[in-house]
Amino acid sequence: IRAGGLASMMRLPVQSTAEGLDACFVGIPLDIGTSNRSGARMGPRQIRTESCMIRKNNIATGACPFESIQVADVGDINLNTYNLPKAVEDIRKGILTIVRHNCKPLVLGGDHTMTYPILQAIKEKHGPVGLVHVDAHADCHDEMLGEKIAHGTPFRRAFEEGCLDGARVIQIGLRGPCYSLQDYDWGKKQGFRIVPVEECWHKSLTPLMEEVRKMMGDKPVYISFDIDALDPAYAPGTGTPEIGGLTTIQGLEIIRGCRGLNIVGGDVVEVSPPYDPTGTTALTAANLLFEMLCVLPGVKYNI
Amino acid sequence: IRAGGLASMMRLPVQSTAEGLDACFVGIPLDIGTSNRSGARMGPRQIRTESCMIRKNNIATGACPFESIQVADVGDINLNTYNLPKAVEDIRKGILTIVRHNCKPLVLGGDHTMTYPILQAIKEKHGPVGLVHVDAHADCHDEMLGEKIAHGTPFRRAFEEGCLDGARVIQIGLRGPCYSLQDYDWGKKQGFRIVPVEECWHKSLTPLMEEVRKMMGDKPVYISFDIDALDPAYAPGTGTPEIGGLTTIQGLEIIRGCRGLNIVGGDVVEVSPPYDPTGTTALTAANLLFEMLCVLPGVKYNI
Amino acid sequence: IRAGGLASMMRLPVQSTAEGLDACFVGIPLDIGTSNRSGARMGPRQIRTESCMIRKNNIATGACPFESIQVADVGDINLNTYNLPKAVEDIRKGILTIVRHNCKPLVLGGDHTMTYPILQAIKEKHGPVGLVHVDAHADCHDEMLGEKIAHGTPFRRAFEEGCLDGARVIQIGLRGPCYSLQDYDWGKKQGFRIVPVEECWHKSLTPLMEEVRKMMGDKPVYISFDIDALDPAYAPGTGTPEIGGLTTIQGLEIIRGCRGLNIVGGDVVEVSPPYDPTGTTALTAANLLFEMLCVLPGVKYNI
Amino acid sequence: IRAGGLASMMRLPVQSTAEGLDACFVGIPLDIGTSNRSGARMGPRQIRTESCMIRKNNIATGACPFESIQVADVGDINLNTYNLPKAVEDIRKGILTIVRHNCKPLVLGGDHTMTYPILQAIKEKHGPVGLVHVDAHADCHDEMLGEKIAHGTPFRRAFEEGCLDGARVIQIGLRGPCYSLQDYDWGKKQGFRIVPVEECWHKSLTPLMEEVRKMMGDKPVYISFDIDALDPAYAPGTGTPEIGGLTTIQGLEIIRGCRGLNIVGGDVVEVSPPYDPTGTTALTAANLLFEMLCVLPGVKYNI
Amino acid sequence: IRAGGLASMMRLPVQSTAEGLDACFVGIPLDIGTSNRSGARMGPRQIRTESCMIRKNNIATGACPFESIQVADVGDINLNTYNLPKAVEDIRKGILTIVRHNCKPLVLGGDHTMTYPILQAIKEKHGPVGLVHVDAHADCHDEMLGEKIAHGTPFRRAFEEGCLDGARVIQIGLRGPCYSLQDYDWGKKQGFRIVPVEECWHKSLTPLMEEVRKMMGDKPVYISFDIDALDPAYAPGTGTPEIGGLTTIQGLEIIRGCRGLNIVGGDVVEVSPPYDPTGTTALTAANLLFEMLCVLPGVKYNI
Amino acid sequence: IRAGGLASMMRLPVQSTAEGLDACFVGIPLDIGTSNRSGARMGPRQIRTESCMIRKNNIATGACPFESIQVADVGDINLNTYNLPKAVEDIRKGILTIVRHNCKPLVLGGDHTMTYPILQAIKEKHGPVGLVHVDAHADCHDEMLGEKIAHGTPFRRAFEEGCLDGARVIQIGLRGPCYSLQDYDWGKKQGFRIVPVEECWHKSLTPLMEEVRKMMGDKPVYISFDIDALDPAYAPGTGTPEIGGLTTIQGLEIIRGCRGLNIVGGDVVEVSPPYDPTGTTALTAANLLFEMLCVLPGVKYNI
Ligand SMILES: [Mn+2]
Ligand SMILES: [Mn+2]
Ligand SMILES: [Mn+2]
Ligand SMILES: [Mn+2]
Ligand SMILES: [Mn+2]
Ligand SMILES: [Mn+2]
Ligand SMILES: [Mn+2]
Ligand SMILES: [Mn+2]
Ligand SMILES: [Mn+2]
Ligand SMILES: [Mn+2]
Ligand SMILES: [Mn+2]
Ligand SMILES: [Mn+2]
Repeated sequence: IRAGGLASMMRLPVQSTAEGLDACFVGIPLDIGTSNRSGARMGPRQIRTESCMIRKNNIATGACPFESIQVADVGDINLNTYNLPKAVEDIRKGILTIVRHNCKPLVLGGDHTMTYPILQAIKEKHGPVGLVHVDAHADCHDEMLGEKIAHGTPFRRAFEEGCLDGARVIQIGLRGPCYSLQDYDWGKKQGFRIVPVEECWHKSLTPLMEEVRKMMGDKPVYISFDIDALDPAYAPGTGTPEIGGLTTIQGLEIIRGCRGLNIVGGDVVEVSPPYDPTGTTALTAANLLFEMLCVLPGVKYNI
Repeated sequence: IRAGGLASMMRLPVQSTAEGLDACFVGIPLDIGTSNRSGARMGPRQIRTESCMIRKNNIATGACPFESIQVADVGDINLNTYNLPKAVEDIRKGILTIVRHNCKPLVLGGDHTMTYPILQAIKEKHGPVGLVHVDAHADCHDEMLGEKIAHGTPFRRAFEEGCLDGARVIQIGLRGPCYSLQDYDWGKKQGFRIVPVEECWHKSLTPLMEEVRKMMGDKPVYISFDIDALDPAYAPGTGTPEIGGLTTIQGLEIIRGCRGLNIVGGDVVEVSPPYDPTGTTALTAANLLFEMLCVLPGVKYNI
Repeated sequence: IRAGGLASMMRLPVQSTAEGLDACFVGIPLDIGTSNRSGARMGPRQIRTESCMIRKNNIATGACPFESIQVADVGDINLNTYNLPKAVEDIRKGILTIVRHNCKPLVLGGDHTMTYPILQAIKEKHGPVGLVHVDAHADCHDEMLGEKIAHGTPFRRAFEEGCLDGARVIQIGLRGPCYSLQDYDWGKKQGFRIVPVEECWHKSLTPLMEEVRKMMGDKPVYISFDIDALDPAYAPGTGTPEIGGLTTIQGLEIIRGCRGLNIVGGDVVEVSPPYDPTGTTALTAANLLFEMLCVLPGVKYNI
Repeated sequence: IRAGGLASMMRLPVQSTAEGLDACFVGIPLDIGTSNRSGARMGPRQIRTESCMIRKNNIATGACPFESIQVADVGDINLNTYNLPKAVEDIRKGILTIVRHNCKPLVLGGDHTMTYPILQAIKEKHGPVGLVHVDAHADCHDEMLGEKIAHGTPFRRAFEEGCLDGARVIQIGLRGPCYSLQDYDWGKKQGFRIVPVEECWHKSLTPLMEEVRKMMGDKPVYISFDIDALDPAYAPGTGTPEIGGLTTIQGLEIIRGCRGLNIVGGDVVEVSPPYDPTGTTALTAANLLFEMLCVLPGVKYNI
Repeated sequence: IRAGGLASMMRLPVQSTAEGLDACFVGIPLDIGTSNRSGARMGPRQIRTESCMIRKNNIATGACPFESIQVADVGDINLNTYNLPKAVEDIRKGILTIVRHNCKPLVLGGDHTMTYPILQAIKEKHGPVGLVHVDAHADCHDEMLGEKIAHGTPFRRAFEEGCLDGARVIQIGLRGPCYSLQDYDWGKKQGFRIVPVEECWHKSLTPLMEEVRKMMGDKPVYISFDIDALDPAYAPGTGTPEIGGLTTIQGLEIIRGCRGLNIVGGDVVEVSPPYDPTGTTALTAANLLFEMLCVLPGVKYNI
Repeated sequence: IRAGGLASMMRLPVQSTAEGLDACFVGIPLDIGTSNRSGARMGPRQIRTESCMIRKNNIATGACPFESIQVADVGDINLNTYNLPKAVEDIRKGILTIVRHNCKPLVLGGDHTMTYPILQAIKEKHGPVGLVHVDAHADCHDEMLGEKIAHGTPFRRAFEEGCLDGARVIQIGLRGPCYSLQDYDWGKKQGFRIVPVEECWHKSLTPLMEEVRKMMGDKPVYISFDIDALDPAYAPGTGTPEIGGLTTIQGLEIIRGCRGLNIVGGDVVEVSPPYDPTGTTALTAANLLFEMLCVLPGVKYNI
């Protein structure tokens, strides 16, 4: 029964390596890169717990991922939880091992610092990628409290190291009081498309995703979904909630709108379980990861 | 004061039978038909508690139900909480007693299994009824874990026993990962109108309800509102939450859109209090039941 | 770091008087005027706590309030928590002291009773004001349980005492089961514009605010935002939640739509922390107060 | 089933007056006399909810109260929640009506202010009474913020009005940081026996209760149990928690130790439900009230 | 790191059968035998989650179980969650499979109904066993609501079927208001030793356990620990909390006092996660299960 | 009123330096040294919030600290939250500045890593100190995951650097499953007195504190109180809860038992607010800090 069984992602089989897999779920229990509320280290575990409710097929889109490709849960990356640079290196190596198996990682976070080393590993396999970045925050600071590595800097670092194809980066949902009115300018200078949340209010994002598909072409794309992109009504369990956010429906439209792209991996980050006693934030993260799985290349659609 | 007094539904008088009533509120503290999270047995009690905030008239629609018809709280149906088939029989008998008094039941649930015996009793009084079924799930499985009776099967059972007029059944809000892409096919075959949640996104449901009113005509109609039809942002306190759901506003549009129909009863089910520490889910259920009361035949509208 | 430092509003400097300030944040820890759930006395403290996440500039509108005007947190008004009429008098005096310093109060509440003495003090400085009142409730009862002073009567009292310019009062978001279908009639008779929540459903409120700006002209305006105007999905932590409410986005549109008006003060009231374990309600209140600051006369916009 | 049925105290019959009863449960939804956290207005309702778990007989003591005396739930006293002196008068009248029926009130609170008018009514019936007062606080202030009526003054007021027999007053469990080291001196001067909590640590209170029984003789005694007497580990849901308190076991020893006394009424106060999401505080209050019932004169013991 | 990795019990390896094991942890996600609050079906999952904090050795007793015997987590028993008699049969078979591998089951519950089929399976392997039953309730009813199988009847059923050696049964911690003062009499008649909680107050249970060891001799013993034996201060997350219970320290003394006995299995039951947002109840259950492991025959003590 | 006013510690005046103070409260919002649950970075803020309930004098001991010595809240130490070694250095410098003003720091934590740099600063002022260390854990590991700095290593590091006088170190309350049975041996070798929690069960710790006073003599002593020393029933809001812990009463006995010692500073650490929705853990920490203030040299006792 659903209340029973080990809490692996979607109650999938667990294996210790990504060998033989087309895609895998993998967790990164990290929260020492967080600026506000902590707790995201417990994100992977609670995402798995809530994922036990998810059935295997996608009646909305017709996707039957488990009839199409080989998927498993490969557990969490073992990381140094006292030292952020070392944790970043642990993550880079862990993801590299996965992608070298030709397996696409779908990553359960964990604070957003983790996307920097993930993109390092992705680059090693695929070169610079396009990026669908859904977030309340641009996460492109040069530093935070003087540090180069933190959850507000991953995309700056990744771009500097050539992991991102600037003309194929879109950031959706940005908002919130800011340190400086120039906060989005660096990204714009690199060619990033910025979609402030105000442009998303009161509408479907399906048309936006048509543009995104054109923008991305058939080159590799990575999806990074910070759960704080959603309004706190939908996802209160996060470290830096910002009001006036996306709806879950818009989140689904974004992921489903990636169908047909050459997705090489994705993540859902910043789930902080202690701040949502209902479990909805983690349940949402689990479903978004399932939807990412459903748009991976190779997944068959039976409708 | 509102914080005071026994927590009957809307602080109405309590009576032990439905004699002399046009409508009654009645609770069914059942949750052993649940597949995921339990807790719905506490639904009736918390719906009553939160209902103490509700005032007696409906300024939005002009309905003054208590000036129009006779209503009371008749308490809960005493059921066997260790044996689902017996509980189903207890419920059938309890509702039958109510309808035999020519009293329309508005039922506080309780897991959705309960709607099967309610419909059995309704049929005995009214014959096959039309159904406005609002839910994330079709609840038309043939069996669950080999059992014929469970919260995923009530409408299959009810239809098989002639309780439902298949051409006048509509299911609104269906969604969520599924066991099989064929999950809605059985209902379609019986003539059910299926409205997946995606057809409801970003719009008012008032136009849909115009169609529903045509579809139902003046023959008897039952309303079954599974609170999980609503998005977990609005109703986290439920056993099988599914993201991307209806808004509460859409829920209100559905019930208010039933005005003029020959409503013979209704329920709000699957409220699981332990999963919503704010009480909003139960408060929403209480209001939806009040709105059902406001659209019962015989209620006067003073605007 | 954001988790550190004394929890003043937005971690601003604290000063004991409003001397030298253009605007100030001030708290009113009152909840003895409440009819349902209490807890709003803890509102100011939790609004401050959650406000520690808010950065100083408004990237959505370009406002940089702290580069434009002098602002500080002046703490809470010391009030008699056992005696509502005395508390009302304490509040009136406290706000009067602030406005006499030519300082605009942005007030953290606290139950809505407080807006009555605030408006008394505002009147003494500015004469009758226009009012943007966002609320699920009209709060224009003549009395509650026989009392003239309570959280359901402030605008009746204030109007009677000449604090309000009836032709420039708008009430947005009204809804909910009512004592009488005539509940909004008194206000209409005084010339108030009533916008029931149903007129707000499924749409942007930006067009409405254009009308409001015309209606208000350049005479003084006060903004009173009862957090229960928002749907409980967005703001569960309040004393009298009503389903079917405004979205936070609409709340932001209302405040941002006040740009250009001659705002002389504002409040966010009815935040009851114990009913929202996620902190989102208080965070929302903190942001709405920040947005009010951003539309004060004199604030420069750098975009 | 236990999850079902209207939430009257212990699921007893409800009646509107105390006529024909030997004892009754009655609620007082008051919290405007509170100095710290509010919420106690919801105490009676949640005590009733949790009381639904309590079975009818006392296997520890052999008491079978419902086979011995006539008991019912008479609902809540309707009080003015905006005006403390009026609420106090409402309570006095409400309790007076009960005692005039020769019915002993067991009162569900509500903040401790309520014990003042209860004692006024008790005095009118029984003259000055002995008092077993279990509390972290002496509640004998002359005034709070200049007010004579508040939850920190009831026993001062009651004594001044001749409701208490000073030589037969005991206060058990006093503790906590204080305004003045003289806080207990007024009581001592009136002959009160003060038992600071430190005298209770690490021991059974059964020997103390032997002394209490001697001290009280066979003259009338009232029991007032402030739930904050218990350590917050046992009763977190209260307005003024103080660490280092009594255990629930000691609380039971106190009430059971009153067996044989001429108890004329009792209360459990200061239960603030929003501060205890587990319900344990209210469950404890419900059980303490049941134990008070079991030691009322006339209750038969079958062991 | 502790926050990472799949949440198996104590992060042990998971295997699908008990083959080759001396002992195993196994979960039973059952709560349809519950009379009050449900939620215990989520017990096994949350016990595993909280168990991730537990390190491998017992510094208090010197036990190093993992250096002594072979242990793993074998997951949950797949049971019919809609039909209690079938679930009981599923459990019997599941445990039988384990014991036939000469593996001792340490079971994570789940409502107490489950101990009946566990004892059936144990009997098949070991014959009638001695029982250390720690509980607030005797669970020896003949029926509940007319049903023979429920969480209040397991030890009656087990005794009737010869699973228990009546002279070697001890029930520790019994208390709480009761249906009848004769509730413990049936057990006494079968020779059970009853230790009401009052005999445990204010003292160590180490002396009691000396007696227990004598009583049990070297014949097989099963330990069944209902978490509601503990006071709700220690274990609020349970379905039928009773005040005045054991301390966790007494719970540890009981389990550690079983050292030297011929333990053939054990369980911790009635953990209902939704009623304890802190996780302490599940953490306590996890530790009690670890302590049971430490007293299994064959475990070496290195002090 | 208590619900009002800025949440400084005990609502004391706030000043930016320790100049002119005999003692100060200072916060350290650190949690990146945590091995299990995070959240302690929010400890200082919530301790201050809950401290607003605390009155100024100690009726149990007669201490009137604010009539004796100069005390204020100096806010939080600004630290690098992304880099533990830098944070440690920030803390060392911050505390050094305080002690150089001849001010005794009473520190609100924050994870236990912080006590290492505090002791570094204390040593610079006072030389090696005696230590009263109350904790479930010895925190004397040589490293954790290969790191020398973490919340499990502070006392090893401090001892190695000559901050501690090994013969005057006592560790009280140690317990819990361990990595190795040798976990306490290193401390014993340095002369530390180890008091496992089992030696504390069922008894007052007042006699132990007599010994401690002899052991410490009149040389400087530091008190470090990890809130996880208390049982999770008393303090669930912490990162590494261990069952079977001290009672709050024992905690009070320990601090009060330090009266007469030459206390040079103290801390209460590991308060993780998200894991205790009742606030009791933070309230307890606030009271323990108040009790530490009451035993500082120079505080007058008026009884
Ligand atoms: Mn981000
Ligand atoms: Mn973000
Ligand atoms: Mn359903
Ligand atoms: Mn459903
Ligand atoms: Mn209002
Ligand atoms: Mn309102
Ligand atoms: Mn009191
Ligand atoms: Mn008290
Ligand atoms: Mn049991
Ligand atoms: Mn039990
Ligand atoms: Mn520590
Ligand atoms: Mn510790």
